[in-house]
Amino acid sequence: MKRVSILGSTGTIGAKALAMIEPHPESFEVVALAARSSIDLLERQIRRFSPRLVAVGTPEAAKALKDRVADRSVEIGWGIEGLLSAATAPEADIVLAAMVGAAGLLPSLAAIKAGKDLALATKEVMVMAGELVMAEAKAHGVRLLPVDSEPSAVFQCLAGHNGAHLKRVLLTSSGGPFRKRPRESFTSITPEEALRHPTWVMGKKITIDSATLMNKGLEIIEASWFFDLEARQIEVIVHPQSIVHSMVEFMDGSVLAQMGVTDMGLPILYALSYPERLPTPLPFLDLHALSALTFEPVDHEKFPCVGFAYQALAAGGTYPAALNAANEMAVDFFLSRRITFPEIATLIGKAMDNHRGRKIDSLEDVLEADRETRRLVEGALQA
Amino acid sequence: MKRVSILGSTGTIGAKALAMIEPHPESFEVVALAARSSIDLLERQIRRFSPRLVAVGTPEAAKALKDRVADRSVEIGWGIEGLLSAATAPEADIVLAAMVGAAGLLPSLAAIKAGKDLALATKEVMVMAGELVMAEAKAHGVRLLPVDSEPSAVFQCLAGHNGAHLKRVLLTSSGGPFRKRPRESFTSITPEEALRHPTWVMGKKITIDSATLMNKGLEIIEASWFFDLEARQIEVIVHPQSIVHSMVEFMDGSVLAQMGVTDMGLPILYALSYPERLPTPLPFLDLHALSALTFEPVDHEKFPCVGFAYQALAAGGTYPAALNAANEMAVDFFLSRRITFPEIATLIGKAMDNHRGRKIDSLEDVLEADRETRRLVEGALQA
Repeated sequence: MKRVSILGSTGTIGAKALAMIEPHPESFEVVALAARSSIDLLERQIRRFSPRLVAVGTPEAAKALKDRVADRSVEIGWGIEGLLSAATAPEADIVLAAMVGAAGLLPSLAAIKAGKDLALATKEVMVMAGELVMAEAKAHGVRLLPVDSEPSAVFQCLAGHNGAHLKRVLLTSSGGPFRKRPRESFTSITPEEALRHPTWVMGKKITIDSATLMNKGLEIIEASWFFDLEARQIEVIVHPQSIVHSMVEFMDGSVLAQMGVTDMGLPILYALSYPERLPTPLPFLDLHALSALTFEPVDHEKFPCVGFAYQALAAGGTYPAALNAANEMAVDFFLSRRITFPEIATLIGKAMDNHRGRKIDSLEDVLEADRETRRLVEGALQA
Repeated sequence: MKRVSILGSTGTIGAKALAMIEPHPESFEVVALAARSSIDLLERQIRRFSPRLVAVGTPEAAKALKDRVADRSVEIGWGIEGLLSAATAPEADIVLAAMVGAAGLLPSLAAIKAGKDLALATKEVMVMAGELVMAEAKAHGVRLLPVDSEPSAVFQCLAGHNGAHLKRVLLTSSGGPFRKRPRESFTSITPEEALRHPTWVMGKKITIDSATLMNKGLEIIEASWFFDLEARQIEVIVHPQSIVHSMVEFMDGSVLAQMGVTDMGLPILYALSYPERLPTPLPFLDLHALSALTFEPVDHEKFPCVGFAYQALAAGGTYPAALNAANEMAVDFFLSRRITFPEIATLIGKAMDNHRGRKIDSLEDVLEADRETRRLVEGALQA
């Protein structure tokens, strides 16, 4: 029996996690939930999973939720304090960090410091502060488990093999919705078009990241920390069917690939059940679908964000945090129609050029790089 | 440094093993070689690898070889005694069993009993006497390492994962040279046609086995012993490109596949270097080749040998040994043009129907089933 705390329980990943947990009441107990403001869904989750503790974003949301579930014995907190309580709930064995972007950093670190295993869906945490996260995980003897399908695939392929024998990791990318769209027409891409992902059902921010391929860029940085890899050991290969979730190649020419249906439930269930596996409630992969798999290189001219990520990884220090902050801002601007699709990459490129990187000695260095870059990107847009 | 003894050093697998060992003098020392009669090649191998001991099939071959290498200090033995000396050479750490068919059984068991790790290319050994082989390996604390590409793939995919989580193993088959040939024309297949394998370069016996798909049948039985699987956990899937060497599917829907270039050097090097990996002297897999992969079910009407193997596995006891003996005889008859291609399966089917299976308590039970079946098949042909 694992006791689970889910941060971001009403988002795509959080809700999917609960859907995967539901058929396995003998294996999981949900002890805490945190979400910003989706009171309706939170109420249903409370009634279904009976967590001891729930955290929401504001005192108003907390009040509204309290009224809804007055008949249940559930503690309701709010704000950063509530969130940190959910991240460090004493009875939790594992915390699923599934919040959007930089907001996941503090609760993830708090969970690790409280000795919780961390199933990490919020890759931005690793991008911003991989060095700190890895060091804290080591210091507190906790497991870090990737939840995203690609690093989960790499994790599964490397299990039982010696990392010293690795030649390279091949992260697969669906190529996003604009793989075949001519670059000349990128300025006319609307948020609605960018939010229509061809293979994966995901939240808004990651769906835009998948359209710019920045999602793959963030995964490169995430993978470098998770698996202790250098930039030259990580490659991206476009695989539009999203059946092969990633591959590893060893020095002796052997390649291992992990595959499965295109559903986030798979890596989520694996991370939560690890080192066990549990029967999937999803359909199994139809192996005849394998006959239609294709692979092609990334078009770096159309998708410069992958290159930015390699640069940030090579530069190290606060560069990945700045990359992440610039990307979060640019995605927001695009979704609110303040910039065009190609300007996402332009803004990020400018932010990278202007960032004065430094070594990360503490969390404050990361947060300062994040704040500074957000100011800089906002300023660049005003200019 | 591993000290290696190679049984069948002049065959396809043995010669390939030496080609893979050659670029790694810091990792391997060849201490013993055994071959039947290819004196020319053996002389070259002796001059290149300086083994202490070499065994050949007959006193005549031993005499001829001794004359050739009179200038070298090498001990030359012959017959079953010579072969067993090579299989149990005191300084050997690992023995590569790469002889053809049932002939590999005695030296393989001798190697295990002498405490040697066994890299097993001769799958017939496991088919005939898997129960004995596994028990002896356990009793003597030695490693059994599959050398064939499919079980090597399964071995690599299962490493680091819990066998209790396995749903099924998918052995890939190239489908052989007659995958697309209409069944009506099977009677006109010549040995020359059957020996032209579309993807793998192998010895004669295994090439015919690949044409009848009995090779896959033998692998089903081999895999059941190697990985402790029931027949229902092993499936065969036709994959004409021979890039995916096999796959495993877990209960949670995750599939792991092992891939590589179509060259036996890969699994041979892995088995010999295990648990290390060494840089391959072969080209790496061109990942763009993955775009042309196809998968289809086995046509059991055209290729009944796969079904015979499942039946023998389910029946247990001496049935697999009888299956193997009948197949070895039938392949010989086909190669010497005494029977047609479809009659290989007919003869095996008859032998299976007539076999009176029994439990295997000792090696003698296996050898008796082997001899009895050979007599029976010879008799069936005379009749």
